[in-house]
Amino acid sequence: MSSPRILICGAGFGGLTAARTLGERFSRSRLSGEILLIDKENYHLFQPLLYQVATAGLSGPDIAIPIRSILRRYPQIRVRMGNIQGFDLSAQLVLLEGSAVAYDSLILSLGATTSYFGRVSWAEHAVGLKSLADAHRIRSRLLLAFEEAECTEDADRREELLTVVIVGGGPTGVELAGAIAELARHVLRRDFRRIDPTKARILLLEAGPRLLNQFPEKLGRVAERKLRELGVDVRLLSPVRDLGEGSVVLPTETIRAANIVWTAGIAPHPLTAALPAPHDRSGRLLVHPDLSLPGYPNVFAIGDMVSVPGVPAIAPAAMQMGRHVADLVANALSFGSAPPEKRPHFRYRDKGMMATIGRASAVAWIGKATFNGPAAWIAWLTIHLVFLIGFRNKAVVLFEWIWSYLTYGLGARIILPSEETASPTRRSPSDSSSTEG
Amino acid sequence: MSSPRILICGAGFGGLTAARTLGERFSRSRLSGEILLIDKENYHLFQPLLYQVATAGLSGPDIAIPIRSILRRYPQIRVRMGNIQGFDLSAQLVLLEGSAVAYDSLILSLGATTSYFGRVSWAEHAVGLKSLADAHRIRSRLLLAFEEAECTEDADRREELLTVVIVGGGPTGVELAGAIAELARHVLRRDFRRIDPTKARILLLEAGPRLLNQFPEKLGRVAERKLRELGVDVRLLSPVRDLGEGSVVLPTETIRAANIVWTAGIAPHPLTAALPAPHDRSGRLLVHPDLSLPGYPNVFAIGDMVSVPGVPAIAPAAMQMGRHVADLVANALSFGSAPPEKRPHFRYRDKGMMATIGRASAVAWIGKATFNGPAAWIAWLTIHLVFLIGFRNKAVVLFEWIWSYLTYGLGARIILPSEETASPTRRSPSDSSSTEG
Repeated sequence: MSSPRILICGAGFGGLTAARTLGERFSRSRLSGEILLIDKENYHLFQPLLYQVATAGLSGPDIAIPIRSILRRYPQIRVRMGNIQGFDLSAQLVLLEGSAVAYDSLILSLGATTSYFGRVSWAEHAVGLKSLADAHRIRSRLLLAFEEAECTEDADRREELLTVVIVGGGPTGVELAGAIAELARHVLRRDFRRIDPTKARILLLEAGPRLLNQFPEKLGRVAERKLRELGVDVRLLSPVRDLGEGSVVLPTETIRAANIVWTAGIAPHPLTAALPAPHDRSGRLLVHPDLSLPGYPNVFAIGDMVSVPGVPAIAPAAMQMGRHVADLVANALSFGSAPPEKRPHFRYRDKGMMATIGRASAVAWIGKATFNGPAAWIAWLTIHLVFLIGFRNKAVVLFEWIWSYLTYGLGARIILPSEETASPTRRSPSDSSSTEG
Repeated sequence: MSSPRILICGAGFGGLTAARTLGERFSRSRLSGEILLIDKENYHLFQPLLYQVATAGLSGPDIAIPIRSILRRYPQIRVRMGNIQGFDLSAQLVLLEGSAVAYDSLILSLGATTSYFGRVSWAEHAVGLKSLADAHRIRSRLLLAFEEAECTEDADRREELLTVVIVGGGPTGVELAGAIAELARHVLRRDFRRIDPTKARILLLEAGPRLLNQFPEKLGRVAERKLRELGVDVRLLSPVRDLGEGSVVLPTETIRAANIVWTAGIAPHPLTAALPAPHDRSGRLLVHPDLSLPGYPNVFAIGDMVSVPGVPAIAPAAMQMGRHVADLVANALSFGSAPPEKRPHFRYRDKGMMATIGRASAVAWIGKATFNGPAAWIAWLTIHLVFLIGFRNKAVVLFEWIWSYLTYGLGARIILPSEETASPTRRSPSDSSSTEG
């Protein structure tokens, strides 16, 4: 092989930042070599706004940007859509379906999936929120439940249909609960004749003593109060004992709900387990301080699949890691390779954390300051718009936000035509045995 | 039953116009009664722009508007999502899954589906374009074929992947061929490294002697010339003899193509056949001049499911029929019912027809005038924006159009995460037996 090949697996925040950083370095320093980015999708997903696709505020393409168009201006970068099946690190190969790709340097950024803590069957009963398919499924099921409720003559079934349970009081759970409450209270309010969507029961279940446990306690209390004001039934110290078809078993009661969303845990990508490196209790990789794999100085792992003390599993951390390893790889090409122990360590620069709760309401924790209310909300909107890739996407999302703020309307209120998105218990909303009229 | 119930089946152009007209009449004349609109989806689909969803220019929610929000301001209208299973016209019942709905007046607007002229197996090999699911399937398969072509080492397979066949030279076929040619030539051009998307082969097959056979001959020739300029291989007098997995059999040759789209025929909704009324050769209902069903003066049928001499199967005709029957029904409530032969006949007011071909190019036929080029294109854009429902949708679509015109970029270039949309022949683009590097 003539010129070195850098292979990046995964086009999430970490992998994409690594690719762009390398693309810039290659252009600036006239480095020779090839960068290949592999992902199973053809788009980069802006996950922080995924809950808005799930709650009908945005369309999928608003936050899913074609990887090829993002990286178009870097001639050294090639993009390949493919499913990674495994790794042969000693032969320096990444295995795809029926083929293998050789590398000189490897950057792994495979991300995380929803974890049900080993209760595999729970995945059937509670949808997670990690992919566009998840978001579409949640949206269609939510809207379909209101449609079914409008038709049914059975009061118990109606109550079940109008109950939404969100498991997990982290940022995703809080944002989803707030958005679903607003969907029911503001958007759907005038749409139905027989049911009153504002009577929908939205429960947010958290096993621990407070919401947003990665944030300062004060902000967890603010989020709790704001959600209660929106009508969300926040239940702390409420660990889920079991999940069934349309039912959530708590220590003291069983709740019937047509919609159950699971945001209580994430686990690193399943292939992480197969990598020859130590793992922490949750399955994440333990890496050298430079983010290389022990024993494989040319292999790096970044983002939600690694465990680095003091670094949270959030997009800015993955992006910083991507930049760090891209610089290491580019430096090695420019100045020669250094052994891992001589390389600069990854240092996380804490830029803060934030979560929206609803209309003009958010919590933010930046440096030592905590703030909430409209100022935090404006900060949240601005930062998300700045980091969303592509002028077109920024413009459309900004328009959708202004529109829904002014009109209390949400544009993407459509039930997608897929078998998969059909209601878990019933295929059609009109499948009730009654004669009307 | 105290107050009369008007039941409308289908929320396409005909049914929705009937509902809005009745809603207005009820509000204005303080009529009492209930209007119930049933559709299998929760949205009205603006079908004239569906080909732009299929070719990645628009997102589904841009042209799919929630029915409930369109009809929100009419208190007498109720909306119900449900699958219609059949009719019992003598008992005045519409049968849903497990339930039945009684009516006093019935307006049927079930629309049309893709017809393969009885060749049922062809549906597996060639996707039609009537629903949002169809559009998403076409988009995902098209984009996936380019991804696969970028990976494969097999030159024959690559050629097959880069071949798109569109069957049917009517407005949908012409618009799709133009949009796919522009997608390959302008949008994807800079996205790939190993393949040249501008080399994609796009064939438009028409069994008859010219394109757009409902338009004046001159416009068919213009469309043909414009498409050829865009690089589309237009084949007239090319009836399809057979369709197989990735192959189209013509009288003189067999073409291998990963993507085959079928726009060559439509048939009325399958339930049309079960209605107790005469049908024409293509299965459409023959109705009284007032659009009522013979023998059922309180049952009307409108839109693509009926055959009225001189009336084309296009949206404006369905809308005019919807208005006509809504007026008949409202008049009967206000002034008493007249027998069908004494009611005003439906008269089609021909507002013309148009089709886009590509960037700044369209053909239009209005009154006795035919025109084409940028003026026809501007007219096309304007009319479609005016008729698209909802300010939000108009604004987003207008933005997307301006953006793609200025940048040659298309926003919705994402492959949707569904098993159904996987390539017909291969599951993953990387499933080729080779070792790279």
